[in-house]
Parts: sequence; structure tokens; C-alpha cells
Amino acid sequence: MKLYEHERLDTLIKENIQIIQSKKVFSFSLDAVLLAHFAELPRNKKACILDACSGNGAVAFMISAKTNNPIYAIEYQEILADMAQRTVTLNHLEDRVKIIHGDYNDAQKWFDRGSVDVITCNPPYFTTEDYANIHEENAIALARHELTITLDEWVSTSSQLLKNGGKLYCVHRPDRLLQLLTALKSHQLVPKKMCFVHPKKEKDANMVLIEAVKQGKEKGIKIIPPIIVFNEKNEYIEPVRSILYGE
Amino acid sequence: MKLYEHERLDTLIKENIQIIQSKKVFSFSLDAVLLAHFAELPRNKKACILDACSGNGAVAFMISAKTNNPIYAIEYQEILADMAQRTVTLNHLEDRVKIIHGDYNDAQKWFDRGSVDVITCNPPYFTTEDYANIHEENAIALARHELTITLDEWVSTSSQLLKNGGKLYCVHRPDRLLQLLTALKSHQLVPKKMCFVHPKKEKDANMVLIEAVKQGKEKGIKIIPPIIVFNEKNEYIEPVRSILYGE
Repeated sequence: MKLYEHERLDTLIKENIQIIQSKKVFSFSLDAVLLAHFAELPRNKKACILDACSGNGAVAFMISAKTNNPIYAIEYQEILADMAQRTVTLNHLEDRVKIIHGDYNDAQKWFDRGSVDVITCNPPYFTTEDYANIHEENAIALARHELTITLDEWVSTSSQLLKNGGKLYCVHRPDRLLQLLTALKSHQLVPKKMCFVHPKKEKDANMVLIEAVKQGKEKGIKIIPPIIVFNEKNEYIEPVRSILYGE
Repeated sequence: MKLYEHERLDTLIKENIQIIQSKKVFSFSLDAVLLAHFAELPRNKKACILDACSGNGAVAFMISAKTNNPIYAIEYQEILADMAQRTVTLNHLEDRVKIIHGDYNDAQKWFDRGSVDVITCNPPYFTTEDYANIHEENAIALARHELTITLDEWVSTSSQLLKNGGKLYCVHRPDRLLQLLTALKSHQLVPKKMCFVHPKKEKDANMVLIEAVKQGKEKGIKIIPPIIVFNEKNEYIEPVRSILYGE
């Protein structure tokens, strides 16, 4: 199994998976960890589970430990899909995580409309307008900006793929929250649960996690307890500590 | 100044105001206190400030301490407007809080379209559908249910009254959040700031506070630090303790 010069191996401690990362190309962050923790998956019941905009597969690898079903991870960038595939090989996860190199907008090449039970998505956060201020087009910029897929596109694609009652779990920045809620609504995805993540207890939220149900009943959303990441000493506090280290 | 048998005098400690309350008719709760704290008012600059769905005037009395401008408090129920008016008299606040007994839907009788700088509103939380399960029509039921004004109506009226750039501060239950955001959007009120209130740190939010700006720029919403009301010993914790007792 080949490891490039700029790559390193990190350990997903809870899952005991060695994951290939690269500062230069892509490394996952807390968003992916919290999304994987937030997502609820059927443990034994047969289900079709996708991870969209999968990057180096971090979310897919983490959620694979929560279910006996395989996870299909779709990633547009070849360099990242290849990284994820080598992580599969390295950890002998061929039956657990299936990497698909392709455009999520074309997901109906691989999955029937209305056939998917659960989708997780840690999408690009920034608009192409933000991208105008960036000079080089590289893997990190592509993963972070809506160059290849927009918010409305990944929401729309997810809605088409999901069964009625199927669930989308996603993470985004709060400053896109209103746009995200509008997109979910216009694609028949009803938000059921939201969690805000604050870096410290006195700071504004910098992430929002959302569970939305395809054609769900409009019975009101639950705002579950907030996640505060660090204490005054900049140490991870519960539940983040346990989520990261499985303690 | 007359006090009825079912009434009592409570003290708004921070503001040093004696407020008339009644378990039978109406008494304010933490929602009103947190809304008053959340609202930002110009201290000295001349501004037209309204408190809608004012009840016994609790929010109006509390915010009157934050500005040199008078507060206009509109209440539909005569019994509550009268209670608020007697609190005005008792505390000699005739120049500070002006009670208007009337329907907020008719507010343009008293205020020109586009003339208001700030509106606070602690509206009825429950739909008339919830009301169907309630048997007696009394002041409390009217204050709690959308019998005389619906969510869309108070949002629409507020939008009509506000200047461009004027601000609406409101509090609601999170299970109505999506409906509230939809109503704000459809009436050109752009949410700028949200705060979730959790009774305890491990409990779902039971209130949301929102600041929305008439014709505001869609530059993304801030989710400010959550408010946790009680600790494990059921004692008020900061900032609620200071907000309530001014310590």
C-alpha cells in the first residue's frame, strides 16, 4: 500500500482504523467526527447508507463502526477517493466501506431514486464568491468551496436518493443555516433535530448539525443540548473528549 | 391604586419596579425576562419602541430601564392592559411606559407604517389546535394561544410597523422555529441573531430568542452562546442569575 511523501497515517482511535491524511491535500477535522457521532444508523437492519462529499472517507470510516451495513462513500476528487481507497485496503475494510469516485450530482448512476435509507454529508462550506479571493485551485480549495457542487445541489440529490422517511445528516456553518433550511424545505426534507457546536461556552456557534427526514411530518424541530468543544484551559470537554478518544 | 384579591405585587429587582401579577390571570415567566435582556435598545438616541402582546407589561417595564425613550406596550386583553396600567401608576412610570389597550393587528391606528425602530414580542406560543384540548376560555388561555393573533399576523404587523433597518426581538418555542423563520422571511425580516435556552445542560432547548432586521442584508445568522438555566442542584446559573437578580 503506497503512502505519498506528503501523506501521514492517523488513527481513528474509537474505530481503531488507520486513516491516510495529508496536510497538503486533505485532512478531516472535528466537523467530520461530530457528524459521524450525530448520525443514527440501523445497527443490524439491512439499509443502504451513503456518505456524500466524502473527502478522504473520514465520516464513512467512522460511521462504518456503528452499523453492520456497508457504507458507500462518494467523492468527486480522484486524489481523495484514491486516498480513501488506500485506507480501505490498509485496514482490510473492503466489505465495510465502498469508495465511489464520482460526482454526487450523478449519484443516480449507482443508486436508484428513493432507494437510500441514510445519507451523511460534510459538504463544502464556502460559496464560490468566497473562492474568488483564493488564488490556487487545489484539492483543499475544492473540498472547501462549492466549485463542483452547491448547497442546493447536494440537498436536492440527497432528497432524490432518499426513501420517504429516509434521513439526511449534515453539518454546516451557522452563517449558512437559513439557506440550508430553505433548501431542505424546498426539497421535501423536514429538519427534525439540530445541534449547535460552540468552540467555547462564551463563543458563537461555529457548526450546526442537522437531521432531516424525507417527507417527514412537520411536528416541530428539537434543539438538542449544545456541544461546547473546549474549556478555559483549551482542553476538550465532554462529550467531545469521549467522542474523540472513546474514553 | 386598586389591587384585586387574586393579585399580588412582585418586584422586578434589577429595575426596582413593583409589578402587578396574578396566578389566576397572568404572571410573566423567564421567557419575558430573557427577551428583555436579549433586546438591544438605543439608550439616548430618539427611537420609537413597542412591546407587542404585552400581557401585564413585564417586558415593557424591564426594557424601559434600558433606554431613555418611552415604551409603548400594546395588549389586547382589557384585564391585562388594566393590570399593566395600574403598575404604571403605582411606580409613577407615566412618562416611561404607555399602555395601549387594543389589537396589535390594528396597530396602524396608533403608529404609522415604517415608523418604529424596535419591537419586542413575547407572543402566544400555542396554536388554536392545541387550544381545542382546553375547556375554559380565560385570560391565561388567551395569552398562551393564538386565538386573537397568529404567528403570521404578529410577524406581518411588526414588519409593516418597522422602519427599514428596524429590529424585531421575539421569543418562541423551538418547535415553532421553522414556522417562525418562514414567517420572518416572507415578511422581509432577516434573522441576524439567535439564542437557544436550555433548562439544563443535558436538556433540549425550550426557548429560542431571535433578533430580526427589516430588509436586513442576508449575511448569515449568528448563534450566540446558549443560555443554560439551572445547574444539577436546580439553582439558577450565570448569566440567568445576574439577569434575574442584577447581582
